[in-house]
Amino acid sequence: MAAEALGTAFLLAAVVGSGIMAARLADGNNALALLCNALSTGAILTVLILIFGPVSGAHFNPAVSLAFAFRRQLAWTEAFAFILAQIAGGVIGVWVAHLMFEVPVWQLSATARTGSGQWIAEIVAALGLGLTIFGCVARAPGAVAYAVGLYITSAYWFTASTSFANPAVTIARALSDTFAGIAAADVLPFIAAQLAGMALATLLALWFWPPADERR
Amino acid sequence: MAAEALGTAFLLAAVVGSGIMAARLADGNNALALLCNALSTGAILTVLILIFGPVSGAHFNPAVSLAFAFRRQLAWTEAFAFILAQIAGGVIGVWVAHLMFEVPVWQLSATARTGSGQWIAEIVAALGLGLTIFGCVARAPGAVAYAVGLYITSAYWFTASTSFANPAVTIARALSDTFAGIAAADVLPFIAAQLAGMALATLLALWFWPPADERR
Amino acid sequence: MAAEALGTAFLLAAVVGSGIMAARLADGNNALALLCNALSTGAILTVLILIFGPVSGAHFNPAVSLAFAFRRQLAWTEAFAFILAQIAGGVIGVWVAHLMFEVPVWQLSATARTGSGQWIAEIVAALGLGLTIFGCVARAPGAVAYAVGLYITSAYWFTASTSFANPAVTIARALSDTFAGIAAADVLPFIAAQLAGMALATLLALWFWPPADERR
Amino acid sequence: MAAEALGTAFLLAAVVGSGIMAARLADGNNALALLCNALSTGAILTVLILIFGPVSGAHFNPAVSLAFAFRRQLAWTEAFAFILAQIAGGVIGVWVAHLMFEVPVWQLSATARTGSGQWIAEIVAALGLGLTIFGCVARAPGAVAYAVGLYITSAYWFTASTSFANPAVTIARALSDTFAGIAAADVLPFIAAQLAGMALATLLALWFWPPADERR
Repeated sequence: MAAEALGTAFLLAAVVGSGIMAARLADGNNALALLCNALSTGAILTVLILIFGPVSGAHFNPAVSLAFAFRRQLAWTEAFAFILAQIAGGVIGVWVAHLMFEVPVWQLSATARTGSGQWIAEIVAALGLGLTIFGCVARAPGAVAYAVGLYITSAYWFTASTSFANPAVTIARALSDTFAGIAAADVLPFIAAQLAGMALATLLALWFWPPADERR
Repeated sequence: MAAEALGTAFLLAAVVGSGIMAARLADGNNALALLCNALSTGAILTVLILIFGPVSGAHFNPAVSLAFAFRRQLAWTEAFAFILAQIAGGVIGVWVAHLMFEVPVWQLSATARTGSGQWIAEIVAALGLGLTIFGCVARAPGAVAYAVGLYITSAYWFTASTSFANPAVTIARALSDTFAGIAAADVLPFIAAQLAGMALATLLALWFWPPADERR
Repeated sequence: MAAEALGTAFLLAAVVGSGIMAARLADGNNALALLCNALSTGAILTVLILIFGPVSGAHFNPAVSLAFAFRRQLAWTEAFAFILAQIAGGVIGVWVAHLMFEVPVWQLSATARTGSGQWIAEIVAALGLGLTIFGCVARAPGAVAYAVGLYITSAYWFTASTSFANPAVTIARALSDTFAGIAAADVLPFIAAQLAGMALATLLALWFWPPADERR
Repeated sequence: MAAEALGTAFLLAAVVGSGIMAARLADGNNALALLCNALSTGAILTVLILIFGPVSGAHFNPAVSLAFAFRRQLAWTEAFAFILAQIAGGVIGVWVAHLMFEVPVWQLSATARTGSGQWIAEIVAALGLGLTIFGCVARAPGAVAYAVGLYITSAYWFTASTSFANPAVTIARALSDTFAGIAAADVLPFIAAQLAGMALATLLALWFWPPADERR
C-alpha cells in the first residue's frame, strides 16, 4: 500500500507539476506544453513501474487493480486497499505539486472535459492501457515499464481526452485548477468510460493471451 | 487476424488522432505538429509490436506480410487474410479517431502527395523499414519492437513523404481529410513505391542476413 | 576518481552547453529551451552511467556517494575522494562548455533560485532520484542507467527548480551565468534540501527494498 | 563494405533529409528544427547499429574504424576499405536526400563552421563518442546501439558544432547547402579535431576498460 500511495503521489506530482511548468513557459503554445507534459508523465511512469513493480505490482490505477482482482491475481480486499492508497496518494501528489509551484494547495478545477468524443476517447485509452499491461505481463514481462510509459506518451496525443485512463488520476486532477485539471462534474463519466475500457481489455486479453500461456 | 486488425486499428487511430490533436494545438507550426505526430506514432508502434508480436507477428502492413510470405515464413493464404484484416482494421482506426475528435466519420482526403521526390521517399522509407525488420529478426529479435518504433519516428522526418511505408496505412489515410490525409488519386503510386522498396529490402536482407544464420 | 571526475565533467558540459545552445536558438520560448536542455541531459546521463557504472559506480553526485557510504557499499574515505572528484569535474565541465560556446570561462551566475517552493522541489527531486537509484540497484540493476536518465528528463519538468538534485552540479552551475546558472547565494539551501531528500530516500529504500533482497 | 556504405548512406540521408524537412516546417525556429534533426539522427543511428552491427561492426565513421584498427580489432587494410565505403555511402546518402526533397543533387555548402569554439567542440564530441563506443563494447555490448543514439542526440545540443564527430559525415555534409551543411573550407580542421578527440578516447579507453577485461 505504501508503494502504491507513494508511486501514485509521484505520478500525480509529475502530471500536475509538469503541466504547470510547461504552461508557464510555453508562451501559449499548447502543443508544446502538452508535449512536455506527455514526455514527463511517460518517463516518470516507466521509472515508477521499474522500482515499485517488484514491491506492489505498480498499478497506481484502480481500474488496473480491479482487473487484476478479476483475473484472480490480486485478492479483492487487497484491491480495495490499493484503490484507497492510490486515491490518497494521488491527492497528496497534486498538493505537493501545488506547494512546489507556490500556488494555493486547495483548488477545484474549472476545466470542462465532456462530450461523446471525450468519453469514447477514455474507453479507447483504457482499452489500450489494459492491452499493453496484460499483453506485456503475458509475453514480455521485462518490457512492461517501458511499454506503459511509451503507451501513455502516445495516448496523450491520439486520444481526444489526453488519456486520463485512470480513476485515481481523474479524481486527483479534479483538485487542481491548472493545465491538467478536470471539472468535478466531469469526473464520473470519465471513470465510467475508463472502467468500461478496462473491462473490454480484460476480456480481450483472456482471448489473446490465455493465462495458461503466461511465463511467470 | 484479430490481432492484425486490432493492432492496425490502434496504429491508425494514433496516426490520425495525434495528427488532429497536434494540428489543433500547434498554432500553425507544422514542425511541432509533425514532431508530436511522429513521437506518438513511433511509441504506439513499439507497444503494439511488443504485445501483438507473439500473437500474429505484428505486421500491421501488407508489404511486410507479403515479404514474409515470399520468405516462406508465412503461408500465402494467411498473408492475404492478414492483408484484409490490416486494411479493415486501418479504416476502423481512422473512423475511431474521427469519433474521438468529433469530426465527420466519413471523409475523403484532399491532401495532394505526389511527385518523383515523394515516390523516391516511399521507396527509401519501405526499404529502410524492411531492413530494420529483417535485420532485427535475424540478429536482434528482442529489439525489433524498439527498432521499428525508432525507425518510423526518424523516417517521419528524413523522408519527403513523412514515411507512410505501408499500403494499409496509405488506404486508410485516404479516408481522413486531416493532418495525416492523402488524396485518393495519390494512393496507388505510393503503394507501388512501397512494394518496390520492400522487395528491394527483401533481396538485400537475404544477402546481409542469410536465413541459415537466423536465431529463432 | 578519474571516472567520477570525467563523467561529472561531461554531465556539466551537457547541462550548461545544451542550455546555452537551446537558449540561443529558441527565440525566447523557454519551454522549448528547457525541453532541449532536459532531453540532452537525460540522454547523456544514461550514456555516462552505462559506461562508467562498471568503473566507479557512476555516482557523479555527492549526495549519492554519501548515501552509498551510509549503506556501507562505499568506504567513507572513498566517498569523500569521490565528492572532491565530482566537484572538480563539474567545474571543469562548465568551463569546457564556456570554451566551446566562446563565452568567458570565469562567470558567476546572477540567476536567483530561491523560496520555499524551490526548496520543497529539491527535496522531492532528490527523494525521487534516490528511490530510482536504490530501487533499480535492488530489483532491476540492468535498468539503472535508463531509469536515471528518464527520471531526470521528467524531473526537469515536474519540479519547480528543474531538478538540480545534486550538490556538485549545483556548485558548478553557480559558475555559469547562462540558462542553467544559479546565484551563489542560493547554493547552500539547495544543497541542504538535496541532502534531506536523499536521506529520506535512503531510509525509505531500506524499508521498500531490504538489502538482503538485493540481487548482485 | 556494403553494410558500411548502405548504413552510412542511410545515416546521411537522415541527417540531411531531416534537416531539410525540419527547416522547411519550423517557421524559422532553429531550436525546433535542431530538435527534430537530432531526434531523427539519434533514432536512425540506433536502428542502423542494431541491424548492421553484426554484419560489419556498424562503424559508419572513419575515425572509429581507425581506432578499431589501432586496437587491433580490425585489419588496417579492412579499415581503409571501410573508410572508402563510408565516404562513398555518405555522399550517396546526401544525394538521395536531395532527390527526395527535389532540390539540386549537386550542391556545395556555404555554411561557415569555424573558430576555436567549434574545434574544441569537435574534440569533445569525438572524445565522448569514442568513450561511449569503447565503454559499451567493453562492459555493456548489448547497449551500444542505444548508447550511441542517445549520445549523438545529446551531443547535437551540448557541443557548439552540433557534433559532427565523423569525417565521412563531415565530407558528405560539405556537399549539401542545406540546414546540415558545412563549407568545404571548414572541413579539414573539423576532421583534424575529430581525429584528435578519437585518439584521446582510444587512450583513455585502454586505461578505463583494459582489453583483458572485455566480455566478448
